[in-house]
Amino acid sequence: MKLPASTEWVLHCATTLAQLDPGATASAKQLAEYYDLPGPYLAKQLQALVRAGVLAATTGPRGGFRLARPASEITLLQLVEAVDGGASPYECREIRQQGRGALPPEDCRDTCILARKMDEAHEAWRQHLASTTLAGIIAELPPTAPARTRSRIAPSTGR
Amino acid sequence: MKLPASTEWVLHCATTLAQLDPGATASAKQLAEYYDLPGPYLAKQLQALVRAGVLAATTGPRGGFRLARPASEITLLQLVEAVDGGASPYECREIRQQGRGALPPEDCRDTCILARKMDEAHEAWRQHLASTTLAGIIAELPPTAPARTRSRIAPSTGR
Repeated sequence: MKLPASTEWVLHCATTLAQLDPGATASAKQLAEYYDLPGPYLAKQLQALVRAGVLAATTGPRGGFRLARPASEITLLQLVEAVDGGASPYECREIRQQGRGALPPEDCRDTCILARKMDEAHEAWRQHLASTTLAGIIAELPPTAPARTRSRIAPSTGR
Repeated sequence: MKLPASTEWVLHCATTLAQLDPGATASAKQLAEYYDLPGPYLAKQLQALVRAGVLAATTGPRGGFRLARPASEITLLQLVEAVDGGASPYECREIRQQGRGALPPEDCRDTCILARKMDEAHEAWRQHLASTTLAGIIAELPPTAPARTRSRIAPSTGR
């Protein structure tokens, strides 16, 4: 059970964007240099965040990405599911309905109790991430972090 | 983020073993026929449960598998982690320490706040599965299930 490596990228990049001045943007190239990540692949992940409604992309020579909503309304769950989808890691293939022990269909109208417990655990995971916002993350960084982030990000040179 | 298909197999096979008469065993072949699963691969997964201390294997012509502990002391977490390991699905590669924005090592003595939140979510998932025992699963099955399971499992013919 593994999340893609890009999960770490989008969590950090969104946290970085949350520290920029209001209205400021950062391009995929700026963010890739900030974290030494492969630019084209990072750009794809950032586009996935745009499709998920978490980031907004602006065009033009100084275009780039910014948060599409206040940091208090963006959760870690939204970021993670934007790159990995929302499916439960447990896949029930209904083996209870096959082989010598096969249960008849009328006994399988309800979700298998094992699948239900696995889905409940996934929901506990989701709830924890849904209760953590980017604003909450920023609040736990050193007070000097946002100014440092803004000074370190490379000047915009377009995407 | 996907658990292996064998997760469903071991959850169901352990639930089946929990319904046998005290002291009774079932071989990998019997369990494979019961659920129409590939026998040799299932046997590997059952051996992983033995290594995890969840099942005991007996040898001899009527040998097979049985629970190593009471069903009330076997949790879904033990079964899942026996086949998939216990690692968090989120891997922190410390990208905060690389690129133009690299934080100095002295600022990275604590776990990254993002990795910490991801690990907390994984712990919430683990806790949910750790609180669910095989005995609890059996208690939610129809009262007729154990007798049906025992009557449907193929007579032992050795492993």
